Amino acid sequence: MSTHDPVTPPAPDLSVARRRSAELKGLIATDPGQFRVLTGDRPTGRLHLGHYFGTLQGRVRLQDLGVDTFVIVADYQVLTDRDVAEHLAEHVEELVLDYLAAGIDPERSTIFAHSALPALNQLLLPFLSLVSVAELRRNPTVKDEIAHSRQASVSGLMFTYPVHQAADILFCKAGVVPVGQDQLPHLEVTRTIARRFNERYGANGPVFPEPDALLSAAPLLLGTDGTKMSKSRGNAITLSATADETARLIKGAKTDAVRRISYDPAARPEVSSLVLLAALCQDRDPQTVAEEIGDGGAAQLKKVVTEAVNEHFAPLRARRTELAADRGHVRDVLRRGNERANAVAETTLAEVRAAMGMAY
Amino acid sequence: MSTHDPVTPPAPDLSVARRRSAELKGLIATDPGQFRVLTGDRPTGRLHLGHYFGTLQGRVRLQDLGVDTFVIVADYQVLTDRDVAEHLAEHVEELVLDYLAAGIDPERSTIFAHSALPALNQLLLPFLSLVSVAELRRNPTVKDEIAHSRQASVSGLMFTYPVHQAADILFCKAGVVPVGQDQLPHLEVTRTIARRFNERYGANGPVFPEPDALLSAAPLLLGTDGTKMSKSRGNAITLSATADETARLIKGAKTDAVRRISYDPAARPEVSSLVLLAALCQDRDPQTVAEEIGDGGAAQLKKVVTEAVNEHFAPLRARRTELAADRGHVRDVLRRGNERANAVAETTLAEVRAAMGMAY
Repeated sequence: MSTHDPVTPPAPDLSVARRRSAELKGLIATDPGQFRVLTGDRPTGRLHLGHYFGTLQGRVRLQDLGVDTFVIVADYQVLTDRDVAEHLAEHVEELVLDYLAAGIDPERSTIFAHSALPALNQLLLPFLSLVSVAELRRNPTVKDEIAHSRQASVSGLMFTYPVHQAADILFCKAGVVPVGQDQLPHLEVTRTIARRFNERYGANGPVFPEPDALLSAAPLLLGTDGTKMSKSRGNAITLSATADETARLIKGAKTDAVRRISYDPAARPEVSSLVLLAALCQDRDPQTVAEEIGDGGAAQLKKVVTEAVNEHFAPLRARRTELAADRGHVRDVLRRGNERANAVAETTLAEVRAAMGMAY
Repeated sequence: MSTHDPVTPPAPDLSVARRRSAELKGLIATDPGQFRVLTGDRPTGRLHLGHYFGTLQGRVRLQDLGVDTFVIVADYQVLTDRDVAEHLAEHVEELVLDYLAAGIDPERSTIFAHSALPALNQLLLPFLSLVSVAELRRNPTVKDEIAHSRQASVSGLMFTYPVHQAADILFCKAGVVPVGQDQLPHLEVTRTIARRFNERYGANGPVFPEPDALLSAAPLLLGTDGTKMSKSRGNAITLSATADETARLIKGAKTDAVRRISYDPAARPEVSSLVLLAALCQDRDPQTVAEEIGDGGAAQLKKVVTEAVNEHFAPLRARRTELAADRGHVRDVLRRGNERANAVAETTLAEVRAAMGMAY
């Protein structure tokens, strides 16, 4: 295969990805100990309920199954769409607190920041040699992110970040990466880089796995204004909100003029998102939740949702408050995670340098 | 200043660069101890006489003046214009041998390979956030190198290598970089990155110097076929050639049909290049050398050049043979250089992370 074939698919085949992902779920359930997963977030603010039900809960489940879980705090990635990362150290600590409160156990999982792993970052160099500028330019997710960037022009970091993401995933040889479907093109870049590296330098055997996507069945939770829940839009209920803040936010949430509550995401997105939120918190079916409220209207709906959220998150929030009182512990978790991840990165980099004939 | 101004000059002002460089030479001569220089090569084969008179001799002079000299073996850069770096470890050892034989003293200078310095390579990340894709695309040297590349398409590594070069220079805070005029646009990228980093993150004082170019008065030595002397064209006399090989190569060198030897680079490039080579070896004026040969013709010219080269390089070649017998020593020089450079890189990276608020 020629190296510079156009491999970033303009439209990844979603049905294939879904089938693969379903198979992978089965394999993980059968033998979780043989899998390593890489997952994480940009430290741009506190996590909200969308993050929790979309990804965080799933990570904790994988960890609890016995999958070796690496959770990356992608701090350099904050700079892909803005000039300066404000309050970064604070955001990083809050993110780690969210992780710990949600059940990521630092004794079993590795929480780390990629800026603390020089050996991981060095992988960007050989990996950049394996992709063409044309391929980078075609990446649909980058195109989309560029369109939503806060910057006047596309930085070199934004342009190359799918390659840096390959380093994030491959440094620990993760075989599984939970992603939303919009992230599939990025994972395809990682798979391509792994394959090409093995083809070019794998005379003594492949160095990297080609990681598989674990597609999240991310429920679509809307923000209180009826648009996508997002930290930057101020429409999000954070994990760390108090019960009162939660009540106030839900009270102000957008609904519609139909009194009878039903679950119909296409026709009634705002109401259905609230119903879904209650259902997720109670681990029940949203149709049932909607029927129970029936003619209670928006007021009753909001009461149910508020109680469901506050009840479900009460233990998490209590843990978080307790953990937040000991910042030394939070920093220590990150320091130990960085150390563990660094050792893994250094081993991989040594292998990469040896495979490339650079061991001198 | 806005961050993404077009700053890579399409045509750097050469007269300004020359004046600055002349001033810099004066300052270095007055107080060499206050300067650190970064210089080096890609390990793609043995160095030849063009390298020696073009840059290597000048580096040794700077070192001997008392300038703190960092000599980089730019091994990742080999991959900018080819898919795989063949025989890399061998090329690296030969390059270090050339350096040592030419007079680079590992007790005073630091010889290192950038692939051995993860903390240097990590600087690529923040630096990529400081330049735009449009700026990278405009770089005239990259454009030119892309035109001469051995690859079917432009790799991400080729595209971003001026930013990696900024990391090579700034990791040790070199204030002086010896360059040919074709390299001025690259150095401008480094200066821009240093300036922008200081503007964005230098609240507690600037982190990086803006390095100045030391323009080399590189004499134009042609290869034995009358084109530019180059490893890959097989027209070069290497530093490590034997006296017999040297004689044979010069015997086969292209000249012209005019018997009387003169020094006239514009009208008689091949003959003048040979005259110049003898003059450089003897530290004499090329006009005088040409006049002495006079009607002796090409045969006498080649005899003079061969003797001059073999006499001038005899001590260097003897040292090289001696050093080459002890590969353990060569590897040890590189290992110690890597260690010293790594300590410098780690200190700089720690400063960079602190300035960016990433110290956690």
